[in-house]
This record gives sequence, structure tokens and C-alpha cells, in this order.
Amino acid sequence: MSDIEVKPNVPLYYTVQNYILDLINENKLKEGDLIPTEMELSNMFHISRPTVRQGLNILVSKGYLRRIKGKGTFVTKPKILQENTRFLESYNTEMQKKGLIAKTKVLEISIKICPDYMIDKLGVCEGEKIIKLTRLRYAYGGNSTEDNKPIILTTVYIPYQKFPNLFLYDFEQRSLYEVFEENHISIKKAVREIEAKLSNREISKLLEISEGSPIHFLSSYGYLEDGSVIEYSESIYPGERNKFIVEISR
Amino acid sequence: MSDIEVKPNVPLYYTVQNYILDLINENKLKEGDLIPTEMELSNMFHISRPTVRQGLNILVSKGYLRRIKGKGTFVTKPKILQENTRFLESYNTEMQKKGLIAKTKVLEISIKICPDYMIDKLGVCEGEKIIKLTRLRYAYGGNSTEDNKPIILTTVYIPYQKFPNLFLYDFEQRSLYEVFEENHISIKKAVREIEAKLSNREISKLLEISEGSPIHFLSSYGYLEDGSVIEYSESIYPGERNKFIVEISR
Repeated sequence: MSDIEVKPNVPLYYTVQNYILDLINENKLKEGDLIPTEMELSNMFHISRPTVRQGLNILVSKGYLRRIKGKGTFVTKPKILQENTRFLESYNTEMQKKGLIAKTKVLEISIKICPDYMIDKLGVCEGEKIIKLTRLRYAYGGNSTEDNKPIILTTVYIPYQKFPNLFLYDFEQRSLYEVFEENHISIKKAVREIEAKLSNREISKLLEISEGSPIHFLSSYGYLEDGSVIEYSESIYPGERNKFIVEISR
Repeated sequence: MSDIEVKPNVPLYYTVQNYILDLINENKLKEGDLIPTEMELSNMFHISRPTVRQGLNILVSKGYLRRIKGKGTFVTKPKILQENTRFLESYNTEMQKKGLIAKTKVLEISIKICPDYMIDKLGVCEGEKIIKLTRLRYAYGGNSTEDNKPIILTTVYIPYQKFPNLFLYDFEQRSLYEVFEENHISIKKAVREIEAKLSNREISKLLEISEGSPIHFLSSYGYLEDGSVIEYSESIYPGERNKFIVEISR
């Protein structure tokens, strides 16, 4: 399994690892590109193939590279780490912290009678009005020019009575949480559930992923101080572009 | 979208909802069974079809029922809510709290030289030994007799030097966390990442799911007080049987 070799204190595999990582960061190696073979890297740096492999393994496990049997090792795009499982903050703020630029496309904003299956979720009465807001969200990287595929498809439902003026805002420019805060609506708690599903035709088209590819389905309740629901949302995160993180302490 | 009707204060749709739920709980309606049509339920309770639909919608959204176009509404098995995204406790304890009985099958326990790609994850030196423990985990419900499909396939890696005696325990009877505690090894923090992937042939066979069905891939680090890694694990949760919950406050 593991080839053991004598080597100096400075780990030689760092050389290979950093060489490849630099090429990726400088955009000389792009998503989908084939990297040099182990043999080529071994000759290039005069280090053993197991050591080369060790360096590459780390990049594979970190999601920078992907091995395809019989074809070689390719550059992938690392998944975006979604931290709305840790913090209560807007998508825009979260992406900004990662050095990414968030962009939003509003697909629908509407006021309608609350559909049956949404009554219990929002804690509204039958016949009450709700606001529905559907958005596609993007994240643009610093040096990459090709990150133009959506990261999330999200639909949020809000009891109309809680915020009748919501309709007036431009949600391609503003985040919902920002607008809430500006209007002294403070979300105290969110409960989120994550399911793993397959993408159907409609979702695949919007998110630019293959039909039947794995998705995270995230349903989320946002609560006010008084315990009432201010927002319920359903979001689709393509599995190939997203992962979630949680941290638990005791 | 929503049919509005005048109705008394007691929500009539509860009648239908509770009727179906009772049948499921009493095991008179089982996973895969077709439930009566909306028309039949409407006649049975002398309530309108939209109201019947409302009651059923709630059970659909809660995961008890599933509509298949042109075929009808079927009983499903609700997904198990995994709360290891909220609490640091053993699988056994977590299932016990839900009134379920946990069962474990050990597929492998071994001591081996740490493979290359695991060195960084566990913070061990090259050539150091690690313990690998692979388990299939089940959860048996109170009144159901057919819950015999696995819920999780999990492999945990532990630096051998941190706990050389681990090998002596029977992990079909004991949980790893229980054994850690008994030996005064206290996990202070866990960091978990959730990805959505597709099941391959090997995993599908072990977990008794279809190839290409959606899975949660959970990787988890457990840290001791001194910040060192005591365990790194990779777990597969079939999407059809599991969902995760997180709760965030501010």
C-alpha cells in the first residue's frame, strides 16, 4: 500500500504539490486540463514516483485534481464550501469572505395565495397571501474567467403580512437578509435540513448540470424572536459545485 | 393553485391526515402501499377534495407519502433525521433517543501503514501505523419488522499510537465514542463536511440501494483538546433513508 523511503526533513512531495497548485492558481492549468504524468513529474524534479504520487494524492483529496482510470489526472474545480450551516449570514457576505463575487438573477418574484402544502410550514391561515422569490445565485472567482455556472437555485416564501414592502426591492442588487435587517426584521434562529437527491430535467436546465446528477436539497426555516416563521426556503445546490461544513463542540 | 373554501375553526384536513398517519403507525399501511384515492377519502369523511388534498399534502411534505404521476399516492418510509451535525454523540445514543434500536456489522478492522493520502488528514508521520474500522449501521423501528436495510456505511481511521488497544473491543456491541470515553479519550470538537454524490456499484451492493442513486458523503475529523486528530472518518448515507439537520442561532 505505502512505499516507505528515506527522505530529508523537508517533504519532497510539497515540491510537486506546490508546482501543480501554482499552475492552477496562475490559470496555466484550467478545469478539465490533463496534468503531466507521474513519470514526467518524477523526471522533472528528480524525485521518486511514490513521492510524486503522494503530492498528487493530497491535491486529489483536497478536490483540485481528479484521477480517471486509464485516462490520467485532471484539474477539477474545488467545491464551494457552504457555511450557512454554521453562520446566519447572507449569501453575498459569505461569498465575499471567501474572496468570491456573488451575483444573483431573479427568476420570479410574486405575491400569491399560500398554496395548501405551504400553510403549515409558514404558519399562515388558509387564503393568506405570501411572497415567493426565486433566484439563481452565482459566485465568481478572483482570477478565473469561466466560473459562470450557477451555484444555487433557491426559492424563498415569506408571509406577505410580515413584510408587504418586500416587493419593492431589487434582489439582484440586494440580499434578502440585508433588506430584512434594514427593516429591523431580525432572524434569531434557522433550522436547516439537507437531503441528497437527483436533479430532474427542469432543475438541470436552470443549474446547467446533467439530468440525474446528485444535488443537495436544503430546506430552511428562519424564525423571529417570537418563534414565528419569517421565511421558509427550498434550495438546490449542485453536488459537483458545493459542499457543506458543520462544526460541533462540547 | 389554491382552492379557497369556507370551513370551521377545526381544520378538517387534520381528520384525513391523522386517519392515514394512524394507519401507518399501526402498520396497517406499509411502505409501498397505495392509499385510498382523494375521491374515496372525500366520500369517506364527507369533506371536499381540496381539503383531502391539503391533508395529504402535509404528509407528502413530511415524507410519509409520495405521489407518483398516473399511479397514485404511496406510503414511503420517512428519512432518518441524522443529528450528528448538531450533537457530538454516538450513533447508538442518537438512535436510542429516536426510539430506534441501533445495530452494527463490522466489515473490517485492521492495523496498517498509513496510506499516503491519509497522512495529512491524520497528522501522522510517513510509515506510521493506523487502525481502520469499517462498519455497516442499521436502525430498527419500534413496530416495523422490515427495516432491515443499512442506514450508513462508515470507515474510521485512527492513529494507532493514540489508542493501541482499540483492536481489543467488539464494535458490534460497543460504540467507538463509548470506548473512547471509557479510556478517557475525549473528543472536544468535530468538523464535518457533507457532499452529494452518486452511489457506485460496490457501495450500492453494501447499502442495498440502486447504483447511481444519490448519497450523502460525510467526511469528519474528531479533535482532542490539544488540537490533534483522534479520528478521521468517511461515511456514506443513502439519500433515500437519511437527511441531516442543522440549527444556527445568533
